[in-house]
Amino acid sequence: MAVVFVTIAPLGTASSSLSPYVAGVERILRNSGLKHELTAMGSIIEGDLDEILPILREMHEQPFAQGAVRVSTLIKIDDRRDKPGSIEGKIRSVEEKL
Amino acid sequence: MAVVFVTIAPLGTASSSLSPYVAGVERILRNSGLKHELTAMGSIIEGDLDEILPILREMHEQPFAQGAVRVSTLIKIDDRRDKPGSIEGKIRSVEEKL
Amino acid sequence: MAVVFVTIAPLGTASSSLSPYVAGVERILRNSGLKHELTAMGSIIEGDLDEILPILREMHEQPFAQGAVRVSTLIKIDDRRDKPGSIEGKIRSVEEKL
Amino acid sequence: MAVVFVTIAPLGTASSSLSPYVAGVERILRNSGLKHELTAMGSIIEGDLDEILPILREMHEQPFAQGAVRVSTLIKIDDRRDKPGSIEGKIRSVEEKL
Repeated sequence: MAVVFVTIAPLGTASSSLSPYVAGVERILRNSGLKHELTAMGSIIEGDLDEILPILREMHEQPFAQGAVRVSTLIKIDDRRDKPGSIEGKIRSVEEKL
Repeated sequence: MAVVFVTIAPLGTASSSLSPYVAGVERILRNSGLKHELTAMGSIIEGDLDEILPILREMHEQPFAQGAVRVSTLIKIDDRRDKPGSIEGKIRSVEEKL
Repeated sequence: MAVVFVTIAPLGTASSSLSPYVAGVERILRNSGLKHELTAMGSIIEGDLDEILPILREMHEQPFAQGAVRVSTLIKIDDRRDKPGSIEGKIRSVEEKL
Repeated sequence: MAVVFVTIAPLGTASSSLSPYVAGVERILRNSGLKHELTAMGSIIEGDLDEILPILREMHEQPFAQGAVRVSTLIKIDDRRDKPGSIEGKIRSVEEKL
């Protein structure tokens, strides 16, 4: 199980407001059935990497479908094989130490 | 006002569990008084960039104080000058379009 | 054509020297036939995104094959559809303006 | 000594060509006297972190001076205290293992 952070932004759109594009991308994620969370700087997804990657590919394509000509995507993968990684587990583990 | 995502990780620690280091970094952020949010993949901070940057510098130093010899820090800044950017505002703006 | 930056690092290796893992990842890239460049902070790859992504997936797996139990991968994609994007073209375009 | 990767991009510019902004940012780096390298995906800087950070702050401001209203900056810091880190040393260390 991996935890993935992703942020997808079109470049060179006339407006500096990107929320219509972020919503388009988020909609794909919601329809995917993957466990995820929307944050102010990107989405965090939890699951099997081989299920997440095809969805990321689809998400990256979405701004083009909404008219963008250039898209910048940032993906950060935290993949742990010694114990199950999860969104909730990672946060709990830090909070216990605070 | 900027919104900043930051994740700080020591490299070459004997254990693959990094939560003691993440907790050390998070403690500095809590003491800073800056508005922020802990996520499974990093912290999100909102505020004046010139107030945030010195705190990021301090956070980056913390794993060394806990014994790390190598630290990898990732910072993503979203800085908007045409209208106030905020953690809450950015999420609300996307959710309205879903 | 997309240009992609990728950096793959194992976490929790006893040693802070990661070059054996970086070399393992780089070897996959060299064998892929994709146009790429090794930098001090990651590799830059140029090509069709659908050819690059399966190679990135393979690269991400490599540190596990070398004994790592946790891997952190950062991918940045710059995908442009209005004109061909290339490593050389992007640098030339900046240097002409300096 | 740290090695830093930085990429600075304005969002919501009417044009998808960002090289005038990248050139503006690169000019600051060249005038800084810091050792650095321009790549297709960002600049790589080597030096004392406390000398690099004020220059990054200045670089982040530059697209606003050129008319941008929103700027997205990505910074990745690799800071090693057990032995000197350098752009050249990092690449050599990988190439020796290939």
